[in-house]
Amino acid sequence: MKKIVNLKKLILLATTAVLMGPSLAMPKSQFESQSESHSIEQVINRYEIALNASDTQSVMELYGKKPVFMPQHSAAQVGRTAVKKAYESVFTTIDLNIKFTIYEIEIQGNKAWARTSSAGKTIILADGVKINEGNNELFIFKKENSQWKIHRYLFSTTTPLNHNATKS
Amino acid sequence: MKKIVNLKKLILLATTAVLMGPSLAMPKSQFESQSESHSIEQVINRYEIALNASDTQSVMELYGKKPVFMPQHSAAQVGRTAVKKAYESVFTTIDLNIKFTIYEIEIQGNKAWARTSSAGKTIILADGVKINEGNNELFIFKKENSQWKIHRYLFSTTTPLNHNATKS
Repeated sequence: MKKIVNLKKLILLATTAVLMGPSLAMPKSQFESQSESHSIEQVINRYEIALNASDTQSVMELYGKKPVFMPQHSAAQVGRTAVKKAYESVFTTIDLNIKFTIYEIEIQGNKAWARTSSAGKTIILADGVKINEGNNELFIFKKENSQWKIHRYLFSTTTPLNHNATKS
Repeated sequence: MKKIVNLKKLILLATTAVLMGPSLAMPKSQFESQSESHSIEQVINRYEIALNASDTQSVMELYGKKPVFMPQHSAAQVGRTAVKKAYESVFTTIDLNIKFTIYEIEIQGNKAWARTSSAGKTIILADGVKINEGNNELFIFKKENSQWKIHRYLFSTTTPLNHNATKS
């Protein structure tokens, strides 16, 4: 009888663990780390949405207090004013429709980094030419007021040289 | 007389501090941090020398066990074999002569990141065309066996679009 009771207890514990989610199923530190990773994933997802909507204000809400954005074919943009101007310039030049893939996120204290790639289409607003867009990205995140913010951001094209643009 | 002795002691202490370097002049943690930063600077300096010498072996000594290198116009190269092949391909295509500028290094435990830019000249080996080279870079470093190694590396051109190449 004791064995059956123990088995029942075991099933109950296992079911509770599944129902309660990862907080019972894994050590606290691991759960916290997964939760932090998830917060950073959300920042990247919101960045994707803001880019595709050409929404400078939403982009700037994701950046921290002293950001550096490194757009291709340009010097590094240091500070919120410069970063904002750079996005405004990007959004008056091109219309992005891209999707990010997150490969890895590593968190160390109040700093983190993520490696992603993005792919999709870009329309050059001046002439309506639609081109394939593909990039690798490195994000450095910093926790400011308990929120993960983009601290440094660099992307670089993965499109082969001499890739031909196609009219849309 | 006591005052003179104290003054002598003070001069002796100050002289010792200067002679002994920063280990006496600043808190241990700050000194350690500066020493770690210096080690990372040395990795970047060695990377510059290896790039300019088209020396794949020396480049690979600076990378860690599971590196990711993201060359422009290419997918991310994951793992030492892929990274090595990518550098071999770069060095059979171009001859670099560039100088890195280090803007910031941040260390958190056994991870660190650095933001740099590089500028100089590149010769396209196929036709001898010499072009201006300029890039922004983000390095992620990882400490492996007490040595800082390149863990992730992404660069992106700062050269304006439609920049004309000039024959050397």
